[in-house]
Amino acid sequence: MSDELKTASIPSLRRLPAYYRFCKQLAETGRQVVSCPHIARELHLDPTQVRKDLAMTGMVGKPRVGYTIGELLAGIEGYLGWTNTTDAFLAGAGNLGAALMGYPGFADYGLNIVAAFDEDPAKIGTTLHGRPVLAMDRLPDLAERMHVHIGIVTVPASAAQSVADLMVLSGIRAIWNFSPTRLDVPDSIILEHVSLTASLAVLTSRLAESLKRSS
Amino acid sequence: MSDELKTASIPSLRRLPAYYRFCKQLAETGRQVVSCPHIARELHLDPTQVRKDLAMTGMVGKPRVGYTIGELLAGIEGYLGWTNTTDAFLAGAGNLGAALMGYPGFADYGLNIVAAFDEDPAKIGTTLHGRPVLAMDRLPDLAERMHVHIGIVTVPASAAQSVADLMVLSGIRAIWNFSPTRLDVPDSIILEHVSLTASLAVLTSRLAESLKRSS
Repeated sequence: MSDELKTASIPSLRRLPAYYRFCKQLAETGRQVVSCPHIARELHLDPTQVRKDLAMTGMVGKPRVGYTIGELLAGIEGYLGWTNTTDAFLAGAGNLGAALMGYPGFADYGLNIVAAFDEDPAKIGTTLHGRPVLAMDRLPDLAERMHVHIGIVTVPASAAQSVADLMVLSGIRAIWNFSPTRLDVPDSIILEHVSLTASLAVLTSRLAESLKRSS
Repeated sequence: MSDELKTASIPSLRRLPAYYRFCKQLAETGRQVVSCPHIARELHLDPTQVRKDLAMTGMVGKPRVGYTIGELLAGIEGYLGWTNTTDAFLAGAGNLGAALMGYPGFADYGLNIVAAFDEDPAKIGTTLHGRPVLAMDRLPDLAERMHVHIGIVTVPASAAQSVADLMVLSGIRAIWNFSPTRLDVPDSIILEHVSLTASLAVLTSRLAESLKRSS
């Protein structure tokens, strides 16, 4: 599985949660089996692409029958590391941090945000959706003792790099960056950036063009 | 400009906010001019790519001098439609909705969330970061009267499609979808999906691989 993982393309990885959600919905209606063309049709994808993506997780459908939904769900969960819930620390207990702590979907995908960290004395010692908000300088010691590998950055842009540096020094291996800035981290650190401003740029420029065409 | 816009690639559009932020930082230190290789080096990009991206906005640097930073900022703002603040309605006044309403960066990028809409009687009539939370069924009438073109979807997955349908019927032209589900909308509607679970899938699978390699 290790070799397959290395060759997995980012677009393929990004599609797996959609397959997972669709199969989960089907399972809830009592269905046992699903075909590749059915998944492709529902998600507006090419069937060959779907087959290739699912093969990546080790799943192969039976000709003229399809995939057993239960096996498919287990295959995706295992492949994405969702079977073992992954503990994470979140830095920045503001609005966005609180939203992520309260996001009900993450537990289904194996993510468990165990604590938030902040610099603000007014926030330290409180709880956020049942999880403690701790002083930022406690992060290194706790990350090491609790073997936490994922750090979520929801501090403002100006503080993001120093928080990322602290996480790297604390043994954090993967950083999920929600701040509107690019982070410099060693090559060995896995970095995934959710850039709201990049997404907004695509939306507003395409809207401007669409309004111009129709005016 | 219209023809150029049509050929603008999504990756290029997504890079423009990063150029904008970097040039804004330089401007704040009093600099007037920046070269293409300087931008490229700072953002870890290829200089040819940077030149091509900026040419898209109509900006051309002077040989051996570079770009006038003020003109570059204005060029990007104009190209992305950020000079005219774009009004938006947000549906779903939960944690994520509140986080987006309170996000300080959006105003800089021309987005103005003027109101939130929700089904929850406990939320209707309250305010969120100074903006009103209104009953969902008031959205169509207000969108039409206020000529609001952008709809932001932060409701749970189960409600997302019906909210998107309501937005399309209300004359909304662009939907920014934060719910963890794919939306079916007419081809004429601009749809931009921020998929947190897709991003999480990339992060967790790469972390699982990295931990396996080092164990």
